[in-house]
This record gives sequence, C-alpha cells and structure tokens, in this order.
Amino acid sequence: MLAAGMSESSPAAVVGIDLGGTSIKAALVGEGYTILARRAVPTDLRSQGALLDAIERLVESVAGETAPAAVGFGLPSQIDQRRGLVLDSTNVPLEDIDVKAEMTRRLGVRVEIDNDANVACLAEARIGAARDARHVVMLTLGTGVGGGLLLDGELYRGSVGAGAELGHMSIDEDGPPCQGHCTNRGCLEVLTSATGVMAAAHRIASERPHGTLAAARAAGEDLDARFVIDRSRAGDTEARDVFTIVGRHLGVGIANYANIFNPELFVIGGGISAAGDLLLDPARAEYHRRALRSSNDAPVVAAQLGNEAGVLGAAALVL
Amino acid sequence: MLAAGMSESSPAAVVGIDLGGTSIKAALVGEGYTILARRAVPTDLRSQGALLDAIERLVESVAGETAPAAVGFGLPSQIDQRRGLVLDSTNVPLEDIDVKAEMTRRLGVRVEIDNDANVACLAEARIGAARDARHVVMLTLGTGVGGGLLLDGELYRGSVGAGAELGHMSIDEDGPPCQGHCTNRGCLEVLTSATGVMAAAHRIASERPHGTLAAARAAGEDLDARFVIDRSRAGDTEARDVFTIVGRHLGVGIANYANIFNPELFVIGGGISAAGDLLLDPARAEYHRRALRSSNDAPVVAAQLGNEAGVLGAAALVL
Repeated sequence: MLAAGMSESSPAAVVGIDLGGTSIKAALVGEGYTILARRAVPTDLRSQGALLDAIERLVESVAGETAPAAVGFGLPSQIDQRRGLVLDSTNVPLEDIDVKAEMTRRLGVRVEIDNDANVACLAEARIGAARDARHVVMLTLGTGVGGGLLLDGELYRGSVGAGAELGHMSIDEDGPPCQGHCTNRGCLEVLTSATGVMAAAHRIASERPHGTLAAARAAGEDLDARFVIDRSRAGDTEARDVFTIVGRHLGVGIANYANIFNPELFVIGGGISAAGDLLLDPARAEYHRRALRSSNDAPVVAAQLGNEAGVLGAAALVL
Repeated sequence: MLAAGMSESSPAAVVGIDLGGTSIKAALVGEGYTILARRAVPTDLRSQGALLDAIERLVESVAGETAPAAVGFGLPSQIDQRRGLVLDSTNVPLEDIDVKAEMTRRLGVRVEIDNDANVACLAEARIGAARDARHVVMLTLGTGVGGGLLLDGELYRGSVGAGAELGHMSIDEDGPPCQGHCTNRGCLEVLTSATGVMAAAHRIASERPHGTLAAARAAGEDLDARFVIDRSRAGDTEARDVFTIVGRHLGVGIANYANIFNPELFVIGGGISAAGDLLLDPARAEYHRRALRSSNDAPVVAAQLGNEAGVLGAAALVL
C-alpha cells in the first residue's frame, strides 16, 4: 500500500510501470510528463506471486514520500479490457489474472493497464513523434513486431480489447513460417523483426560468397540484428543492403496500413529502428510506390522516446 | 424540391439512393426498414449536372405524395467527410463536388452521403447478416473489392473520411499487378475480384489442357466470373477448384483482418459471393489455419441483403 496523503510538491504525480521479460522499469511522472524519479529492477520470473510482489515494492520505491494519484502499467500481454483480464503474456508469468483489480487492491489507488505496444504508441502520440496527431499507426520492430493504433485520438483495442496485432499481417502468403505462437506465413513480423534482419543477412552472405557478410559468417559471427546494425552504420554496403530488403517489406506493410487506416503518420520504433533512414528510406520508397493516391503521403518517422516510451506511456494511461 | 408537410401514413419515411455506374436505385423506406416504394433509372452519365438532375427527379418520383424526413446516398466515390466533399468517383461523373450541400439545397431536407461499401456494411449491420454486431469487417467481391468497417458500432472512415480501402491490402508482395488506379501488387482485389476468378480459371485451363475449362475456352468462352459461378454450381469440379484458389486468397486476407481488428464476424458480399460455400469454405479453412488463436473464431458469413443493401444502407444513414 502506498503512503497516504498528497505530497505538496507533486500534486498530480503518477507512476508508470514498464514490465519486460528482462527488467521492470518504473518512473514517477509529474505534470507535463516530467520524470521526477526512476527505478528499475530485474524481472522476477519465478512465479506470478513473486512478480506481483516485486512490482508492488518497485512502485512504493519509486514513489518514495510522494503519494501518486494513480499507477499505469504497460504489460507484454494480451489483455481483455472488457473483463480487465490479462489472458496471456510473452516472457513473463502473467496469465488469466485480473492485474488491474489485484494491483488496485495492493496499492490502494486507481490502476490502468494496457499492452506495451499500445502504451508506446500512446506515449509517442502525447509527447513524442506523433504529438498532436489523432490517427497514428505505430510499428515496433524488435524480437517480434508489435503495433499500436490511435484512431481519432483513442487507442484501438479491437472487439475484445486484445488490441491490434499489426505484426501478424501476411504480405507474402507463401512466405516463410512466422514465429512464436503464430501459424501464419510471410507476416510482417517474420520479415521485419530481428529474425527478418538475420534471415536477410544470411541470404546476402550466401548469395555473395566473397562479400563482407560471408566473411563475417565464416569468422563465426551469427549475423544477428545488432551486428548488422553496427556494420551498416559503419558504412558496410552489404549490411546496408540487408536494410534495403527489410525496408522494402516494411514499406509493403506500411502501404497496406495506409490503405486501411489512412493515418496522418506512421511511427517506427523498436530496436531494429536504430538502423534509422537506412531502413526507413527504402520503406518510404516502397510505400509511396504502392499505396493509393489518397493514402500515400503520410510521413514515416522514427519513434522519439526510445526506452522511455514504456514508462511514459504507462503514465499517460492515468494522466 | 420535395412536397412540403409530412404524410400521415408514413411519419418517419426516408429515401435511400444507391448510385451505380449502370443504374440509380431508389427506395422509400419506413419504420423497421420496410420498403414502401422502389424506383430505378439508368444512370445519366452525360455530365455532373445531368446526373444530379436525374437523382433529384428520382427522389421526387419515389417519394410520391410522401414528404420524406431525409435522404441518404450511397455513392461509388471517395468522400472527404470532414469537408463534405466527393473527391473522385468510379464510373460516374462526380468529382470535387459537395454532393451533400448540393442535394440539401435541391431537396430541402436533411441529406447524408457515404461510400457504397460503407453503406452496404451499415445495412448488413442494421438488418442483415451482421445484425446486433458492433465490430464487423465486410468485404464485397465484385468487379473490384470494396470494404466496410464497423468499429464499436460506428462506420470507420479513416483520418480524412475517405474510408477503409480493404481491397487494396497486398497479400503477395511480388504477385500480379493490381487494377484501376492501384499501383500495388498482389492486392486482395486482383486476387479475389471477378478479375481474380477469371485469372484462376485460365490458370487451371492452361494447367489441365484436357479438362472442362480448357474445353470451354477452346469453344470460345472467356471464362469470366459469371460463367465459372454457373459451372461450379452445376457441379463442374474444375470450376469448383477455381473457388478453392480464390477462397484461399480470401482466407489469407480474412486472417490478416482478424489479427488487425478482432471483429465479431466477417460478412462477404458482392457478385462473386454468389459462389457461396464453394468460396467461403476454403476461405474459412485458410483463415482458421493462419489467424492468431485469440482472433481465429469469428464466423465468416455471406451477406444477406443482396441488391437491396445499397438503398437500405443509404436509408440507414438517415434513419
């Protein structure tokens, strides 16, 4: 339970929690999205109870003497907002549990929860790359591909509140099998995530046996996304060609979402977006080539908030 | 201008207009979506002025002695609902014109306009296959592929009100070039419209030179969608194989929209849907194989209102 009474110095402070498979990040956030305090702890993966205990202690720790008005949570989970239930989670032990009711009981303040991709989209829309926009498609390219959708200023959560799974759109019906629980083929996720970057790098290494990627592979590199990003930033043209391939797939996906949603802009985040315009320029070109005239002029921009999108978006749920 | 004063027999009657490239259909629609009168005339394509004159006369003619409370229009057009402007139309001379203001001035009653695919979706949601559903994806497979989207009970019209172009989602990034104004490849439209049916029929005719479709082609048939539907209903297994191919593409598109929108159900309309379960069964199977577990149990049903979806949906805009 949090300290009672409002601190006079932070009349409207709230706590934002970003739960990931590796760490739990927390921020005490004041007016104008000012971060007043930060804390992070390794994620306690032993059990659901241990994880919830750790989260409760982290909220209390980051709040300190302040009594936050509310706490927002970004969770790596499929959430049924109608029933307030976490259905299933990626990499953390949360399943079939009403996290909102449980944390409200533990903390004694208002609690809101949402999927981490939605939360990141909300943060970018409030104070990041999509500030002031009301129709936004955000794609986060990392281990998987997540998506957040802002329609007419509100997060879209689908008919059961599970949210839009924007990474699981097939753009190549006979393409490579997707990953994780997904039984589809040629999804944006398998083509533009870290997996997609690595696959494109290996393809180039095989097609160009005397090239730099083939040499790196022969020297024991596994050509993962981190390696390809570093090499492409250092000017390696073959590593840059990897992002031309991945960017082209991304552009096909963006064109599809442009025709479907006609958003004001696209925000691309996640670890893979560290490739910057090496990824985004081919994506933009492919998007402009393919989308209908009425939908082909939305800017495609990089996310601005990086690692802080999680805690700031979680705070935005309750601010 | 319409007759002044309310008719006592129809206290809440409205007129619905369905404008197409071949004919303009009109219905006087009363409470409970009862059709009180119908009229249709060939579309006057000579000029924008002639077309608007013809529409005005048709509204007056179908209303007769009744003074309708309002008139709704389903138009084959891209519409900017924010500015009330018809931007562009398919097969009719309406471009860069404020049809709503113009018809309000001519008719002296409240007027609403919307895209014909949206209007058909609204009709199915009010009194057709999607009655009582609040999250619906409708695909109309005809010469092109149109789409209507009901999200939380409201038609979704995108950020500029142009509507969702659900037929222009690529599911095969290196597939056949799309048609009309579209510069994309492998769109649902080119794979599941009348064009897609004909292409699949010709593919089978070429692959099976001693089969029934090859024989029909040799006899001068052009293997168009109408012919293939008739043959498949008559039991021709090759014609049925055409719909297995087209249905599979449709199922890939449905799986994508399931992951994006998580709707309560899918409604499939348009001329090609006359193939019924010969088309829908392979689509359902492919959808169930591909969609995420949380989104793969929405029913896929045929539209119920057929040719009347247009006038009834137009009436629904103002009822």
